[in-house]
Amino acid sequence: MEYRFSDRMQGISGNAIREIFKLLDNPEVVSFAGGMPATDCLPVARFRQMCDRLLSSPDAPVLLQYGATEGYLPLRRRLAEFVGRCGIHGISEDNVLVVTGGQQGIDLTYKIFINPGDAVLVEDPTYLAALHIAKTYQARAIGVRSGEEGIELEDLEAKIKAEHPKIFYIVPNFSNPTGKTLSAEKRKAIAELCAAHGVMVLEDDPYRELRYSGEPLPAIKSFDKAGNCIYLFSFSKTISPAMRVGAVVAEPEVIRKLTVGKQATDVHTATLLQAVAYEFIKDDTLDQQIARSVPLYREKRDVMLEALDRCMPASFTHTRPEGGLFIWGEFDPASKISAKAKFREAVENKVAYVCGNDFFADGRGDNCVRLNFSNETAERIVLGCERLGKLFG
Amino acid sequence: MEYRFSDRMQGISGNAIREIFKLLDNPEVVSFAGGMPATDCLPVARFRQMCDRLLSSPDAPVLLQYGATEGYLPLRRRLAEFVGRCGIHGISEDNVLVVTGGQQGIDLTYKIFINPGDAVLVEDPTYLAALHIAKTYQARAIGVRSGEEGIELEDLEAKIKAEHPKIFYIVPNFSNPTGKTLSAEKRKAIAELCAAHGVMVLEDDPYRELRYSGEPLPAIKSFDKAGNCIYLFSFSKTISPAMRVGAVVAEPEVIRKLTVGKQATDVHTATLLQAVAYEFIKDDTLDQQIARSVPLYREKRDVMLEALDRCMPASFTHTRPEGGLFIWGEFDPASKISAKAKFREAVENKVAYVCGNDFFADGRGDNCVRLNFSNETAERIVLGCERLGKLFG
Repeated sequence: MEYRFSDRMQGISGNAIREIFKLLDNPEVVSFAGGMPATDCLPVARFRQMCDRLLSSPDAPVLLQYGATEGYLPLRRRLAEFVGRCGIHGISEDNVLVVTGGQQGIDLTYKIFINPGDAVLVEDPTYLAALHIAKTYQARAIGVRSGEEGIELEDLEAKIKAEHPKIFYIVPNFSNPTGKTLSAEKRKAIAELCAAHGVMVLEDDPYRELRYSGEPLPAIKSFDKAGNCIYLFSFSKTISPAMRVGAVVAEPEVIRKLTVGKQATDVHTATLLQAVAYEFIKDDTLDQQIARSVPLYREKRDVMLEALDRCMPASFTHTRPEGGLFIWGEFDPASKISAKAKFREAVENKVAYVCGNDFFADGRGDNCVRLNFSNETAERIVLGCERLGKLFG
Repeated sequence: MEYRFSDRMQGISGNAIREIFKLLDNPEVVSFAGGMPATDCLPVARFRQMCDRLLSSPDAPVLLQYGATEGYLPLRRRLAEFVGRCGIHGISEDNVLVVTGGQQGIDLTYKIFINPGDAVLVEDPTYLAALHIAKTYQARAIGVRSGEEGIELEDLEAKIKAEHPKIFYIVPNFSNPTGKTLSAEKRKAIAELCAAHGVMVLEDDPYRELRYSGEPLPAIKSFDKAGNCIYLFSFSKTISPAMRVGAVVAEPEVIRKLTVGKQATDVHTATLLQAVAYEFIKDDTLDQQIARSVPLYREKRDVMLEALDRCMPASFTHTRPEGGLFIWGEFDPASKISAKAKFREAVENKVAYVCGNDFFADGRGDNCVRLNFSNETAERIVLGCERLGKLFG
């Protein structure tokens, strides 16, 4: 039968990165695609102990029975304190909704705010799922210029005035895809500028705890005086991506609307895994886990930076992120090098990256690559960079 | 700030039942609201053993790392065989998408088919989330008449011709809320009628394994020759609601579109819990679990049927379901009894139900109640029915 699919699904193919995964079955391919935390850093033994303890307790049936859409109460309460570390204070569990991975927080925020045709502003380049999800809500995703210091405030203000967006989506720490971090001054300015124009800031902060140098900075949400900032938190990069537990922090009125939206999709997030997340943050277990991971990631980052400096041609420049999982590279447009055109050849030569195009609202970025350093060994990072050097040299 | 919420969220309050839960904190209230499986039936010890075994295996890191949106491959492969028990044959993992609870299957199906204003046909009365989700897609939900034998095919055909719906949503086994089961003949007729008019059948089948009398019947999907049937499966009622694992079975073209829709919301379903579901169905563990639960549920059903027959006034009639979790009751309209008007008084008298209104596309059903028998003891079921009898007698 001829299926009559909805307008929102027209012209949307799968998320490019998840499609690329399918090409990478060959273990000889060094993959700088993807955005996985290091498999070696996954706290398998601790996770097992926690599941065992939780499921042995007299309260265990609660973890398998239907729960509240808002989330597991001990986790919500603890998260309301926990975000104090990024400067968000004076909130309670009524400001917290547990979500099935941070990505559901993006989806639900669009769901409760976006009508078809509404504008969403994003950094250029931005997290590709923010663009992908925008398509499913038939939003107009519009890129805001971003320089060495991240988002350009003049362009943000100009686009706000021109496009009347409902939402400005931003990854302030170690941005996906660029690895850039916004200064505290820019964060404050973003909160205020967006408040002045009635724009919701959707602050997506999955990488914050993975800082390898420099000092932690307060969240944009910490400067929120108007109630226009929504803070997205995730355990995917610090505990486990496959547990699919994250949280939204926002004004109670927004949380209530998001909760109604969540009821209509997955009812609630798996309770056992919410309880595991709670076990990690009720004391310093997560911080210990992060303290073990950070030196490993720092080394991988440094190895990649050194190898790129050594192997890549002069036409290639790249970011030097203070944390996160990604380095962003650009070939001088004058070089006419297209990372997109070279992608198949790269995979044939056993190295993979993500082409820049997928991260720009308007699809440009042929000359750009996103390189992930978190899930390969130091040896393979060097090998992969050498292969890239040969391919593009 | 004045939030500019989307049109799709206007006039949608929370799901009525989940709001009712909040009234039921008092343990003295006998609750026939909700649709929880019996807490006593939750396989806590088995669940714990499985988590422990899975997280002790050398493959454990796979369960905590990002996985494919389509789902955990061993589970998808096994599900493709498993649904043979309801007459669905000749399919592979390409026909299966794992979802975060059966409810996500409804949400994703609407997402890929429904434009604002499109019609969705539902049984009158139907599962209230099917109506709630329809609102979030700005669909027109239209009720189809349902008699003692379930959906009336003449009215279904008339409404298909008049309304040109994209989807017909139906719970064929022990319907929520009525407990009614469709005959095999009706199932075949539905598949054919909808195929002839290009309508997708969304067959939601979470209760199938909870049969206490009568013989199992083939799924509507087993009669699908046109590729217009989507079968929703769930582990919520047989293993655990809070694990949030279900599956969609459909043509590969539909599965691919659903997968793109799922990528944009929660990326994938928690892998550990998919692996637990696989452990339950790779051999007869789930069947053993069901065999232990069924006698307990049968007794609860029988106790409620007997108590209702004994306690309720002559103006009250109710269904006698062969399985599932619900009995549906109606007061003769001539009695002028409104279950809705009496609800607060009922809770004050320590018994709760769900009013019929929430299950009708047009909001009627003041004279109807949905009574859940699965999650109270036999003694409390009798007590609750006696309280209902006094209230309405």
